[in-house]
Amino acid sequence: MADKKYILHGFFRSSTSFRVRIALNLKGIPFDQKTYILRKGEQRGPDYLELNNQGLVPALELPCGTVLTQSMAILDYLDATHPAPRFLPEDPVQAAYVRSLANRIACDIHPINNLRILGYLKDPLGHSEEEIADWFCHWMNVELASLEKTLEESSFTGKFCFGDEPGLADMCLIPQIVNGRRFNASVDHLPTLKRIFEHALTLDAFKGALPENQPDAV
Amino acid sequence: MADKKYILHGFFRSSTSFRVRIALNLKGIPFDQKTYILRKGEQRGPDYLELNNQGLVPALELPCGTVLTQSMAILDYLDATHPAPRFLPEDPVQAAYVRSLANRIACDIHPINNLRILGYLKDPLGHSEEEIADWFCHWMNVELASLEKTLEESSFTGKFCFGDEPGLADMCLIPQIVNGRRFNASVDHLPTLKRIFEHALTLDAFKGALPENQPDAV
Repeated sequence: MADKKYILHGFFRSSTSFRVRIALNLKGIPFDQKTYILRKGEQRGPDYLELNNQGLVPALELPCGTVLTQSMAILDYLDATHPAPRFLPEDPVQAAYVRSLANRIACDIHPINNLRILGYLKDPLGHSEEEIADWFCHWMNVELASLEKTLEESSFTGKFCFGDEPGLADMCLIPQIVNGRRFNASVDHLPTLKRIFEHALTLDAFKGALPENQPDAV
Repeated sequence: MADKKYILHGFFRSSTSFRVRIALNLKGIPFDQKTYILRKGEQRGPDYLELNNQGLVPALELPCGTVLTQSMAILDYLDATHPAPRFLPEDPVQAAYVRSLANRIACDIHPINNLRILGYLKDPLGHSEEEIADWFCHWMNVELASLEKTLEESSFTGKFCFGDEPGLADMCLIPQIVNGRRFNASVDHLPTLKRIFEHALTLDAFKGALPENQPDAV
């Protein structure tokens, strides 16, 4: 019998699933994917709710059957259990800096622009497609502009957000930039972010995790 | 000359500042506080932007002068540098579980109900006070109801979210429940959360971190 694999329960277009795909690729962990079509609400169906009663993707099923939820908790788990390559610098101040960069995206952009929030703006709040796109771009642009400034000024910035190797912040940044395409939010005016984005996509771990390269992509 | 202290740059009513106050208290770290009145926009004034160009509280200034931002990154830093009492279980699966509980609040409730989001709903989106209160309560109620279910079903749940000692999840939960009071969002119908909340407030570390017990409380 074949060894049991990690199973990523997610969706090709979900940027939090994208984070976990990058992490698994970087650690060299083979995984299968099970897809839940978000537009159809499959993440709120009984199959998925049994894994994660929050009804939000992703969830990572370990070979032992244990299910982990919340992408940032999953990234920390993978880093703790598969030490190379490290997702965070060893020095606690530097690690806190990288975590702060990651959380600027994971807390202050992504959840505000998540599908269910955009859905609530439409119904019950009655906003137009244009107002919803403005909302999405507003939070993304405000936050990425200040992130650009931080990275531009920091001596830690290299080919990636911290040094020349990819880490926790890059796993949040690249999916966020890709996610912005849905509303034509671009980082062309933010040279540091643009450079890191383009460099990341030269690496198989990032390229292989792109939404369009997933088996469930339509 | 007296030893330099940690300085928490925040606001008494900010629930992310509240998280850091609990953490500092639990670790037994003395700290001073510098206040930025959010309603007046002082977190976007030049003094604060120099510490944190995101313009969001809190920021923790270390005795060496280094400034850390993002409350969840700060909690991890404090836990890495002051090992007792631990904020997370040692086992990676259990740690991921506690992180997931914490992030359900830190990612999926708090940022969506943050002051600047409520401000945007008012202007430019033109929503009434009632619609804004509904928004706040909707996200808090949806998420805390599923969190209640998780805690109710988990054998890990004790006097706190994980076992009988406070940890990372409790540092997010207690401030979120207190924050809900602003819009009369209560957890009276969620017995596990209510019990953990009431127990936490019997501890000096939590009681001393309450908004009303801060020097800048009005």
